[in-house]
Amino acid sequence: MKVGVLGAGQLGRMLALAGIPMNIEFVLLDPAKDACGQSLGEFINAAFDDESALRKFVDKVDVVTVEFENISVKSLEWLSQHVPVYPPPLALSTAQDRLLEKQMFARLGIPTAEYKAIDQLDAFIDYCSSKDQPMIAKSRREGYDGKGQARISADTDLSASWDKLAGVPILVEDMINFDREVSIIAVRDRNGDTVFYPLCENTHANGILHCTQVRLNDPMQQQAEDYSKRVMDELDYVGVLTFEFFDCDGQLIANEIAPRVHNSGHWSIEGTDSSQFENHLRAICGMPLGSTETRGPSAMINIVGEMPARDAVLAVEGAHWHDYAKQPRAGRKLGHITVRANNQQQFDERLAKLEKLLAGTSAPVGACKN
Amino acid sequence: MKVGVLGAGQLGRMLALAGIPMNIEFVLLDPAKDACGQSLGEFINAAFDDESALRKFVDKVDVVTVEFENISVKSLEWLSQHVPVYPPPLALSTAQDRLLEKQMFARLGIPTAEYKAIDQLDAFIDYCSSKDQPMIAKSRREGYDGKGQARISADTDLSASWDKLAGVPILVEDMINFDREVSIIAVRDRNGDTVFYPLCENTHANGILHCTQVRLNDPMQQQAEDYSKRVMDELDYVGVLTFEFFDCDGQLIANEIAPRVHNSGHWSIEGTDSSQFENHLRAICGMPLGSTETRGPSAMINIVGEMPARDAVLAVEGAHWHDYAKQPRAGRKLGHITVRANNQQQFDERLAKLEKLLAGTSAPVGACKN
Repeated sequence: MKVGVLGAGQLGRMLALAGIPMNIEFVLLDPAKDACGQSLGEFINAAFDDESALRKFVDKVDVVTVEFENISVKSLEWLSQHVPVYPPPLALSTAQDRLLEKQMFARLGIPTAEYKAIDQLDAFIDYCSSKDQPMIAKSRREGYDGKGQARISADTDLSASWDKLAGVPILVEDMINFDREVSIIAVRDRNGDTVFYPLCENTHANGILHCTQVRLNDPMQQQAEDYSKRVMDELDYVGVLTFEFFDCDGQLIANEIAPRVHNSGHWSIEGTDSSQFENHLRAICGMPLGSTETRGPSAMINIVGEMPARDAVLAVEGAHWHDYAKQPRAGRKLGHITVRANNQQQFDERLAKLEKLLAGTSAPVGACKN
Repeated sequence: MKVGVLGAGQLGRMLALAGIPMNIEFVLLDPAKDACGQSLGEFINAAFDDESALRKFVDKVDVVTVEFENISVKSLEWLSQHVPVYPPPLALSTAQDRLLEKQMFARLGIPTAEYKAIDQLDAFIDYCSSKDQPMIAKSRREGYDGKGQARISADTDLSASWDKLAGVPILVEDMINFDREVSIIAVRDRNGDTVFYPLCENTHANGILHCTQVRLNDPMQQQAEDYSKRVMDELDYVGVLTFEFFDCDGQLIANEIAPRVHNSGHWSIEGTDSSQFENHLRAICGMPLGSTETRGPSAMINIVGEMPARDAVLAVEGAHWHDYAKQPRAGRKLGHITVRANNQQQFDERLAKLEKLLAGTSAPVGACKN
């Protein structure tokens, strides 16, 4: 079985590391010459819309998947005429456009923040001036890790914000006054069977995910599974789908979906029986899904900008080191640390030790709420 | 950090899969053109005593280890003049010769079967004729998976047995009337700190390991750890050491050591916090050792000769599929299956399902004792 992955960054790298033990081979296509997953399979260094590269790519593989959602749907549709493409192109086109995504949520009865789609500066100024609460303007397409966003309050210079967003079509959403940000990793196989990982609580720093903590027996688990299942069934989805929510007073408000394995699921490598990477591959390759049974409290801390001292981290019981072998650069995700324990007290101690060790690096201390 | 591995079979492959997430790079040297671990690093296709290949190999790496113990000690000693070689050559030379190994056990007060070293046919016939119990003759060097062994009983044609062993120096050992065969995976780091995995019970078929089951809270755990520690301290050992014992009436009798990661430790990939492969790398690279905390009952079943139907295996809850990507051949280890559960009853059910699925393949049904 040969899997083609569009994208050869850390997600492609971790997919390959989960697949090779099962004798899955990989062909990875990425425009970046130094893509960190390239050595784990055959590497095609080309743009995602390079027709001759895509032809070569598709001839080599049995199934195609993505590690990155902003890939031209035209490319994906062309590929899907030759081999199965999972998740299906419709899932990608929906996730690529915040308006289509929000419209789908509405169709499926999944609550969202109040929003308005806006294409013109005049309409932007009119709409923002008519509201008396903080809002957030987001480009409809190609935003991630807080990019393509602007906060709007009473004293915001609206023209400057519009310019910052480069005049592209946007959504203006009411800012949600949430208690916490949570996400769920859901998996659906070719037969429509589903499994779910436990709900995770996410904290961010500078717009980038900082820490994910697993919430065992979270009261919102069922609601998150239900909403994810609605979306996956609607899209005839195959693979891992990540669904991010705001939890407001015990009510989940949809933020966005990511049609792929996700940073908030990295804890599953050591924290569950079958990681999100293994289950994504099982799903797209037509294998039975693996158990998502969870081994006590788990967390993941991102490493951004520079790697901390490895051995001090590894000296913390239950800690694991993931270094993506990327060149350090400010704001760049270079790796992550996972930690697991058998009970909450042990876990809290271990996590506190790690946060202390990361003081002085780019990671904010104390940002993992307990 | 770049690790050189002598041998690129499934053990080298699984070492690399454990190391790549930590940004360890690999150079693998193996005489087999089709060695199944070759794609996970730089591959040098050469004999283990090819001087120019070893020179090229050692120039590329920070530390050398082995996946195979029958490598010329001369080569290892030469390598160790350039970079650290772990385990140390002394451990390899001891494990390569059953007589040296037995003498070490005696020196350390570790019980063994009664044995005699024999070089000549006459002495062989004299010794065997003088004893009135079943014995086993083993070549002193290069025996594994039951190769280079002959059973001796009252009606054995001793000349034919001698010929079968090809006239090489041998040990003749009293056959042990054991209750079970067990092994322990022990790890020692550069500072002399140690960790141990739980004792495992092993069953064999046709001289090849068939099934390993973890024994949590086994009454012999402490004795196995104590004996392993004596050996590791004696050899100033660094890395994973596997120690195989016979359990006779609650007394461990040493069988042999393997100075490397071992087939009876494969369950640790899914069954513990840090697998034997990760901990071997942590030890030889000078990192702190990882937790060997064990996640409930675990087992490993070897796949020999031909692969069974994958999806039926993966449909068993808690089962994981390891396919080494090797060409099938009678008697060849092609992969393994691990299974894990949260309690003994669940585990027994899952293991029974797997054994049933493997009926009709080369694996003997019911050979995993519970």
